Amino acid sequence: MNHDDLTGMKHIIIIGGGFAGLNAAKQLGGCSGVSVSVIDRTNHHLFQPLLYQVAMAGLSPAEIAYPIRSLLAKYANIRVLLGNVTAVDLDAAEIKTDFGTVTYDYLILACGAKHSYFGHEEWEKYAPGLKTLAQATEMRRRVLTAYELAERETDQAERRKLLTFIVVGGGPTGVELAGSLGEISRHTLEKDFNRIDPATTRVVLIEGATRLLPSYDPSLSKRAQRDLEELGVTVWLERMVTDITPKGVRIGDEFIHAATVLWAAGVKPSSINETMEVERDAYGRIIVEPDLSLKDARNVFVVGDQAHATGRDGLPLPGLAPVAMQQGRHAARQILNDLRDKERRPFRYKDKGMMATIGRKKAVAQIGSWKVHGFTAWLMWLFVHIYYLIGFKNRFFVLYQWAWSYMTYQKGARLIVNKEWRSFNNEDV
Amino acid sequence: MNHDDLTGMKHIIIIGGGFAGLNAAKQLGGCSGVSVSVIDRTNHHLFQPLLYQVAMAGLSPAEIAYPIRSLLAKYANIRVLLGNVTAVDLDAAEIKTDFGTVTYDYLILACGAKHSYFGHEEWEKYAPGLKTLAQATEMRRRVLTAYELAERETDQAERRKLLTFIVVGGGPTGVELAGSLGEISRHTLEKDFNRIDPATTRVVLIEGATRLLPSYDPSLSKRAQRDLEELGVTVWLERMVTDITPKGVRIGDEFIHAATVLWAAGVKPSSINETMEVERDAYGRIIVEPDLSLKDARNVFVVGDQAHATGRDGLPLPGLAPVAMQQGRHAARQILNDLRDKERRPFRYKDKGMMATIGRKKAVAQIGSWKVHGFTAWLMWLFVHIYYLIGFKNRFFVLYQWAWSYMTYQKGARLIVNKEWRSFNNEDV
Repeated sequence: MNHDDLTGMKHIIIIGGGFAGLNAAKQLGGCSGVSVSVIDRTNHHLFQPLLYQVAMAGLSPAEIAYPIRSLLAKYANIRVLLGNVTAVDLDAAEIKTDFGTVTYDYLILACGAKHSYFGHEEWEKYAPGLKTLAQATEMRRRVLTAYELAERETDQAERRKLLTFIVVGGGPTGVELAGSLGEISRHTLEKDFNRIDPATTRVVLIEGATRLLPSYDPSLSKRAQRDLEELGVTVWLERMVTDITPKGVRIGDEFIHAATVLWAAGVKPSSINETMEVERDAYGRIIVEPDLSLKDARNVFVVGDQAHATGRDGLPLPGLAPVAMQQGRHAARQILNDLRDKERRPFRYKDKGMMATIGRKKAVAQIGSWKVHGFTAWLMWLFVHIYYLIGFKNRFFVLYQWAWSYMTYQKGARLIVNKEWRSFNNEDV
Repeated sequence: MNHDDLTGMKHIIIIGGGFAGLNAAKQLGGCSGVSVSVIDRTNHHLFQPLLYQVAMAGLSPAEIAYPIRSLLAKYANIRVLLGNVTAVDLDAAEIKTDFGTVTYDYLILACGAKHSYFGHEEWEKYAPGLKTLAQATEMRRRVLTAYELAERETDQAERRKLLTFIVVGGGPTGVELAGSLGEISRHTLEKDFNRIDPATTRVVLIEGATRLLPSYDPSLSKRAQRDLEELGVTVWLERMVTDITPKGVRIGDEFIHAATVLWAAGVKPSSINETMEVERDAYGRIIVEPDLSLKDARNVFVVGDQAHATGRDGLPLPGLAPVAMQQGRHAARQILNDLRDKERRPFRYKDKGMMATIGRKKAVAQIGSWKVHGFTAWLMWLFVHIYYLIGFKNRFFVLYQWAWSYMTYQKGARLIVNKEWRSFNNEDV
């Protein structure tokens, strides 16, 4: 693919339309002298902090996802392309995609992370992770189907297996999933099922470390655990999953029968990192210079979950939305500095804190040394997430959905939509 | 499966949670002496008249679907079971399901219809129909993906193929799909794409009869055609599709290259009809007695799209939601009449009319001999559909979505969610 039409303009490619890529693109939108291509393999920007709500039937996919194309439509110098990028050639300054090779003057890599099964990729089909909308609706399908099958099951042991939900990983996603499952079994489904008592549901949260939310202050870890336990969640700490099968989960010499296992245990950066000869950390993240560019390719920036950038304390910055947003904007600004013959500046993360919900009305939050929990933290969480959610319409819908389910204990999107849509056309009920 | 727990009660099985089944169940809810099982292969009641809105990215699945379980939760004598029914044994008074054999005292068959490809089932994968949520999101995926691929395509012929949409069948569904596609290409996507001009999109509606909407008054058929043509839709009448391939559609000696073909040409009743030795019409619908029961099994009722019941004019009743709703209630009432030693009554359809939208603000409607078109008909359509849509929350959401897209020309759910969710976990951008 050529860019003859853009002669004289600097061509900037941004790979990925997540928090980092979208913010980089917005920073460059409308700027003279630059032509921007945003490439993503999906057509939508996903508000990932609320993805667990889709998995738990609280929100519909369209309420937390918005076409990247629409979000950037007002910028005439940005084009959005649906595509898969398979490799980056730093020497030739070009990328390989499923629609050909594209050259760049500047490149911003914002491909994010995906699940890591620590070498046990075969576990994925029994324990899906939560990174995409399709994975979220798959989780939703599994959870809702387990209840439906339990309702018609007559065998006690089989029913117990169907009503056992295991969440692997006690980070924010694991805590949010387990809390929602506890809430659903205690309240949401209570009156809808005749033959099972959803309160007998077992929700087990398994974490390898000595406490939940290891990146939070220990007092909040303790609080989160207590709040989860109040929702009927069993928390197992310092336990490692050694096998996952269709029947359940093995933890050392114990085996729990469970029909539904959800994976929230680990992430690794996009495997595009492996197509480049660059310095990577133990997790596979690319180690970047203070300005977020590559040491041997100063026209290439790596931002968000894909990058290993260090904070003031010398530690790598965490994989949080605020980090990705700020890094995306920073990389874009450094390109503009180059074009305007200004000096590049190092990236400094402005701490926006971190928070996780527990069920329908509690949360834990930590902003610097300030720690909040309970309903206050949940209101903060609500405000922050509504505030950052893109598009007035979506914000309104989500707030309305929450108000609704807060008052009625009902869930907004309790749909089982079959993965294999075609199979239903050939069968009948 | 036994129903020992229900001794003394009459066990009524309703197969299908569509308009017919749901209304039958509601009629029986709370009635003494009856225990009801509603079996459906999905967990949701689907408001099918708005399904094309999901396919055309206007509404989210959860806005037109609601858990059957929740809709019937208030009735203690009804249980809802997710399951596939594979056969009906009239002599033994039992049904075969994927969770065992279940006996009944009364049976209401409300399984609906599915697509018919007139013996060309191999066309289905190139031309999906529109009966389930999964099919609707598949249609949405195809339409949105075609635009995305066209945006990055450099070859003119290939781009034209990607921007050609063919709708097969000029009944209400075909008219609604074609109208929406015309609207989308003329308005919705206009500003979002840089490199393609969505106004060059070709939308071709193919109908075998001499006019669109053959079941409507000819004046409305003409009006619908004119309105569609104003939206840029090409209407081909008296043309039969002779082949569908991945490249496009053959119509006699002509071949149109098209990446997207949507099937709205024919339906046939649920194939459960073939598991019973009963009288069927040429379309496979079961011919029922005036009270909607079977001649040789008076404890079995067949209602909705699955049944051939005749109206006052001696013609079979059309496959419309009001017919299904009234028939469901009627069948339930006849069972109650039996149990109360009252006489059964014949079914009389109370004509509620029929309507179809054309694009974002026009419609045609016919109620008895009264015919309406244009914006007035669209407002009627809006009112009727909002009124019948289940649940206050959904009604409100849908109205809000429509107001939004009416004002902004934006669509509410422009998401491409991949069919094969797992494929994305192994790849990268």
